[in-house]
Amino acid sequence: MIENELKKIINSIPHSNPKYQAAIMERWNHLAKPIGGLGRLEEMVGKLGSIYHTMHPKVDKRAIVIMAGDHGVVEEGVTQTGSEVTRSVMENMTVTASSITPFAEVAHADLIPVDVGVAADLYAQGIWKRKVRYGTGNIRREPAMTREEAAKAILTGIQVIGELKKQGYEAAAIGEMGIGNTTISSAICAYLLEVPVEEVTGKGAGLTSQALKNKIQVIKDSLKLHQPDRKDMLDVISKIGGLEVAGMAGCYLGGAYHQMPVVIDGFISSVAAYIAVQMAPAVREYLFASHCSDEPAGKKMLKALSLDPYFYGNMRLGEGTGAAMCFTFMDYALAAYEGIPSFDEADIEDYVPLD
Amino acid sequence: MIENELKKIINSIPHSNPKYQAAIMERWNHLAKPIGGLGRLEEMVGKLGSIYHTMHPKVDKRAIVIMAGDHGVVEEGVTQTGSEVTRSVMENMTVTASSITPFAEVAHADLIPVDVGVAADLYAQGIWKRKVRYGTGNIRREPAMTREEAAKAILTGIQVIGELKKQGYEAAAIGEMGIGNTTISSAICAYLLEVPVEEVTGKGAGLTSQALKNKIQVIKDSLKLHQPDRKDMLDVISKIGGLEVAGMAGCYLGGAYHQMPVVIDGFISSVAAYIAVQMAPAVREYLFASHCSDEPAGKKMLKALSLDPYFYGNMRLGEGTGAAMCFTFMDYALAAYEGIPSFDEADIEDYVPLD
Repeated sequence: MIENELKKIINSIPHSNPKYQAAIMERWNHLAKPIGGLGRLEEMVGKLGSIYHTMHPKVDKRAIVIMAGDHGVVEEGVTQTGSEVTRSVMENMTVTASSITPFAEVAHADLIPVDVGVAADLYAQGIWKRKVRYGTGNIRREPAMTREEAAKAILTGIQVIGELKKQGYEAAAIGEMGIGNTTISSAICAYLLEVPVEEVTGKGAGLTSQALKNKIQVIKDSLKLHQPDRKDMLDVISKIGGLEVAGMAGCYLGGAYHQMPVVIDGFISSVAAYIAVQMAPAVREYLFASHCSDEPAGKKMLKALSLDPYFYGNMRLGEGTGAAMCFTFMDYALAAYEGIPSFDEADIEDYVPLD
Repeated sequence: MIENELKKIINSIPHSNPKYQAAIMERWNHLAKPIGGLGRLEEMVGKLGSIYHTMHPKVDKRAIVIMAGDHGVVEEGVTQTGSEVTRSVMENMTVTASSITPFAEVAHADLIPVDVGVAADLYAQGIWKRKVRYGTGNIRREPAMTREEAAKAILTGIQVIGELKKQGYEAAAIGEMGIGNTTISSAICAYLLEVPVEEVTGKGAGLTSQALKNKIQVIKDSLKLHQPDRKDMLDVISKIGGLEVAGMAGCYLGGAYHQMPVVIDGFISSVAAYIAVQMAPAVREYLFASHCSDEPAGKKMLKALSLDPYFYGNMRLGEGTGAAMCFTFMDYALAAYEGIPSFDEADIEDYVPLD
């Protein structure tokens, strides 16, 4: 039922329009600066134009979506703090007391915390209540969720972007909160990219070396138990999780479906983006990689997505902090594109490319 | 005379105070986020605090200094456009019609165009008139300038930062404008780092492959003719140039002397910073590398400076465009540092580092 609805949406995801990319690059070449002198900022405007089908894209109204969920696997000792922290951080976001709050302010973005699977009731005003279930199962022993729940969590993400689009939002950064979700993400990354678990598993928010060994073993046990079908993302998500990862994958699918640029945050966010691209390759045309995460697997995931990050800050906080910064990169790119005079206006002879 | 004045200033350049770095890192660890989770943004605040000798640094009032000069070597056909473009671009800056203007707006920074050696009279209001001479000599045949002029150009940069400090500026990005200055910078880079000219010479604002070959030959001829003393930066500048490179080196020295953070822009800017660090190693403590330039030698210079850039945009426009973006990175870092609640405030148990 829900799976069919999801399939229908996925099948109707449009490509962005590369004609705008080409026309925008052409317009850049008439601005009074060396050809290609603003490098990836120029390409960025082209990509935004291709998404919006316009020569003059705008990202004035922007959202930072925080998908939140809990993970049964936390009972295996893979994290330093308990699941109750997921709830606290989400509630803190509504009273501007979280890490992402100052980033949202500098980025001129609105914070949209979404409960897609927190293991507790969240009463705070301002949280979008879209709970699919109260946390996942412990994947060392059981599937994370049912196939229907996985489809529902993805659909939730698509719908969130749809609602934001209706409210006039022009771009969304997709972050997450969920104690235990680096375990889930490392598991999915190792499994889908077929690389050793050790290579893509880090200390998360701050594990000891001993605890890291345990985390790696838990991931290995879980993958051995479930062995999901690598070609079937619903199978992967339902068996490994998590609810917020599925919700984020939905946001990326939603970005493409509703034609809105969507920004990747760190490692977990990139795993979700990768899942979305596996479900609908056109999603890649709507994705922006903001920064290179400090998690060992972060670079690997972005490479698998063929996306280059802009900012190298060794950040690994999550909550969309790295993604938020991308709005500012877009601000610079768009301000330059609209503000640099043409050669005529600047009364300077063209820098003609002669080769 | 002027050289003695310069020496006196250089000898009195203070180190920044690492105690603040340590105390600021300690304060970060009490904020409600994973230890070190904001990576290089955390270090950035520490560095700013060490410069300002405070736990709460601010960079609210910021300047983008554009040092401008012309180069006699342009008559050797090493550039695509003529020296008259230097004047046009500088005058355009005063009527908000240049490439850097939109960057300055997004960065909330004031533009300070400084004529330290343009080969024409600049009448536009808003340009700081500090001309040391009308362009340099053609270094393929003669020295760029006298030793006294080199010292004077450096001193000019130091004084510009001093004036900005008096006006309340808290940080400065150092950019440049000068047709021909990638030739000069590649020459200095190859000579000081003792690497082949071919490895560090690019197409500048857009040369043909044939013209690039000529540019490389001109650099080789010039270095062979002059062979300046690698340990004597005044000898290097007076023989190779240029006036704006010297002025920028002065800005970096001035940043350290007046205890103000100074941001490196692209390749040319990094060559000037390297010269400043050779003259006074403590300068490094005041430097921020904003982005990784697309010029082949850009990465090499930053590596020689042991500085990691933050932004990877393949930009090679100059005029301080890449450096301006660093103010926003500082905004994010400082907003997070001041805005993220402590564990107590957030009512979350500390993430204790257990290893």
